[in-house]
Amino acid sequence: MLIVKKFGGTSVADAERIDAVADRCIEDYRKGHQIVVVLSAMGKTTDALLTRAQAINPNAPKREVDMLLATGEQTSVALMAMAMAAKGVPAISLNAFQVAMHTTSRYGDARFKRIDTERITNELDSGRIVIVTGFQGINRRDDVTTLGRGGSDTTAVALAAALRADACEIYTDVEGVYTADPRVVPGARKLKEITYDEMLELATLGAKVLHNRSVGLAKKYRVTLVVRSSMNRAEGTVVKEVCDVEGMLVSGVAVDKNAARIAVLGVKNEPGVAFRIFDELAKHGINVDVILQSIGRDETKDISFTVDQEQAKEAVKVLKENQQRLTIAEVKEEKNVAKLSIVGAGMQTNAGVAAKMFEALFDVGVNIRMIATSEIRITVLIDLEDVDIATRAVHDKFFHE
Amino acid sequence: MLIVKKFGGTSVADAERIDAVADRCIEDYRKGHQIVVVLSAMGKTTDALLTRAQAINPNAPKREVDMLLATGEQTSVALMAMAMAAKGVPAISLNAFQVAMHTTSRYGDARFKRIDTERITNELDSGRIVIVTGFQGINRRDDVTTLGRGGSDTTAVALAAALRADACEIYTDVEGVYTADPRVVPGARKLKEITYDEMLELATLGAKVLHNRSVGLAKKYRVTLVVRSSMNRAEGTVVKEVCDVEGMLVSGVAVDKNAARIAVLGVKNEPGVAFRIFDELAKHGINVDVILQSIGRDETKDISFTVDQEQAKEAVKVLKENQQRLTIAEVKEEKNVAKLSIVGAGMQTNAGVAAKMFEALFDVGVNIRMIATSEIRITVLIDLEDVDIATRAVHDKFFHE
Repeated sequence: MLIVKKFGGTSVADAERIDAVADRCIEDYRKGHQIVVVLSAMGKTTDALLTRAQAINPNAPKREVDMLLATGEQTSVALMAMAMAAKGVPAISLNAFQVAMHTTSRYGDARFKRIDTERITNELDSGRIVIVTGFQGINRRDDVTTLGRGGSDTTAVALAAALRADACEIYTDVEGVYTADPRVVPGARKLKEITYDEMLELATLGAKVLHNRSVGLAKKYRVTLVVRSSMNRAEGTVVKEVCDVEGMLVSGVAVDKNAARIAVLGVKNEPGVAFRIFDELAKHGINVDVILQSIGRDETKDISFTVDQEQAKEAVKVLKENQQRLTIAEVKEEKNVAKLSIVGAGMQTNAGVAAKMFEALFDVGVNIRMIATSEIRITVLIDLEDVDIATRAVHDKFFHE
Repeated sequence: MLIVKKFGGTSVADAERIDAVADRCIEDYRKGHQIVVVLSAMGKTTDALLTRAQAINPNAPKREVDMLLATGEQTSVALMAMAMAAKGVPAISLNAFQVAMHTTSRYGDARFKRIDTERITNELDSGRIVIVTGFQGINRRDDVTTLGRGGSDTTAVALAAALRADACEIYTDVEGVYTADPRVVPGARKLKEITYDEMLELATLGAKVLHNRSVGLAKKYRVTLVVRSSMNRAEGTVVKEVCDVEGMLVSGVAVDKNAARIAVLGVKNEPGVAFRIFDELAKHGINVDVILQSIGRDETKDISFTVDQEQAKEAVKVLKENQQRLTIAEVKEEKNVAKLSIVGAGMQTNAGVAAKMFEALFDVGVNIRMIATSEIRITVLIDLEDVDIATRAVHDKFFHE
């Protein structure tokens, strides 16, 4: 088998942990598998480098930021190759140039275009473990690019796709994908498997186990993902196209506390107004989520929506700058809200899932502020202070009744 | 003019110093010059990286050590480009891949083979300051190589040669090349100019201002070197092919405390014995310097020579392992010695220089243990404890009488 294994910054934070990861990879190598390891920068290296850049130039050119950040993963892979060599295993580190991981030109947020596999394949064929820098690429000018947050997961999936690997294992600090956050819901269970689509919804909704870009890429190229712990040997969760649903309506309950609610009040009640508002926000790169439009009475109506907290200030600014043109009477921002979602491929064929969720919330007296749904997800906006009790109630409703 | 400027690790040790170097480069850029900046890793970064490697694998593969070390210069150049950008000057950092600095394959001690100038020239032509990683290259496998100690100087000279630069300025913590170490000889003077050959002798002899590899390369490609201080605007010393000797017999007095003396006693007094001894040492990569052979009496003779202190142990080992074949009765090692040299293109045409040096040493009662000469240098081996008084005496003899 050809296995791509990805370890994040925490897993390679110091010499001891690098050593443990080396052991883990060598174990599979000794079983006769071909191993490609993708690493992030050690511990908080990336943040430390950004701080250094910030001290020199708060508006540093993004090209140079990427050039700087790329040193983080290069350090990890070189040290990992040394650790494996110390254990008598032939290993070689490769950076984005050496592999030739071609990306788009956009510094800090590049996308993979094409990955050459020749060098990696040659190294694997000559019996080496190949250790590749995550998070980085090169553009057509041979300049270093980085992929943005979650980039190392994306590198691993992209490599697995290019190499037609048998599996792509993402090692994290949790044992897999859970039906809810175990810190909040004591009865949360680890899922044996989950579909790409469900994982995508969970990732988007803040489950934080996998970045949704990497899940999307895995879905596109049918890469079998395995989410598992770097701390122990537990089996983890397999992410793939179709799962045995085992009669489960819902795969998980996800919480996103990073939401802000923006209320746009007294908008003229005529066609095209809502479009113009969301178009203006989109032009400024603001992602709008759950939307609620009041039924217009008289001549005006109200529109509410959520955005990520980091974008809330900008969203308000954009709306106020265009207040007159967009016929807005007032803009309000509210931060003490959270999104609670249930996700499940099973709900496509089952009515009554939403009702069951609302019932659970009603039972514990949690007020629903807004609702949004997709084919496999139902999201409600609730008060931030209700979030833990609501999560437990919804989870218990679907998993313990 | 096209000027290559090289700054060492001390000059870019922190954000403040990076800022000062940026100012210095921008000053010349604003005068209309094209500027290429070569940087070492910041401060003690290289040593810190080596320590980390050591902790993980005391016998780390050299390929991986180079991969690790190369991050040091990449960090420097990215931060420098940011510093210049903060001052409104377009600048771009390039690593060895991006320039295409081709070297031999030997990790840790690679030699330049070919440097592509296209990317640099394009960047210069579009009005940018180009900042290049010193010390590193790529080999034919696209693997990262490093050049060994003094490598950044070599990078600067090699780039200056490839780009046909008008000057290659090496910024150091001294103001230029002195007639002697100013810390030892208060009356030491800064030289306005010096020939490549003299500089080569001084570099080899431990003057430490420039690495002799870079001087050799400069001589080969007729690159005008300027050694100057990164701390002030003093003029520095120009190193070139021919200088106005201004009647100076001697350009400088150099001291090398890194010498060990090895005495090989009781060697058979017959032809070829000395050759076999030095041949064996050469095979083990041991560089032998000042050699003294006693006039053979009876059937045996004694041979003494100096080596760098790091090689002394290995030299003794090699000799003892071959003791019988090389007809050696006894091997002795002595570390409390130093080499004192005078260097000067002028001595080629002037008799009596050696006599003047010996007289100076005699005057202060310093015993000469061994002597070696080349066309433009005279070296004596003396006791380590005599070295300061001897240096002052010799310097004063040539520069203050």
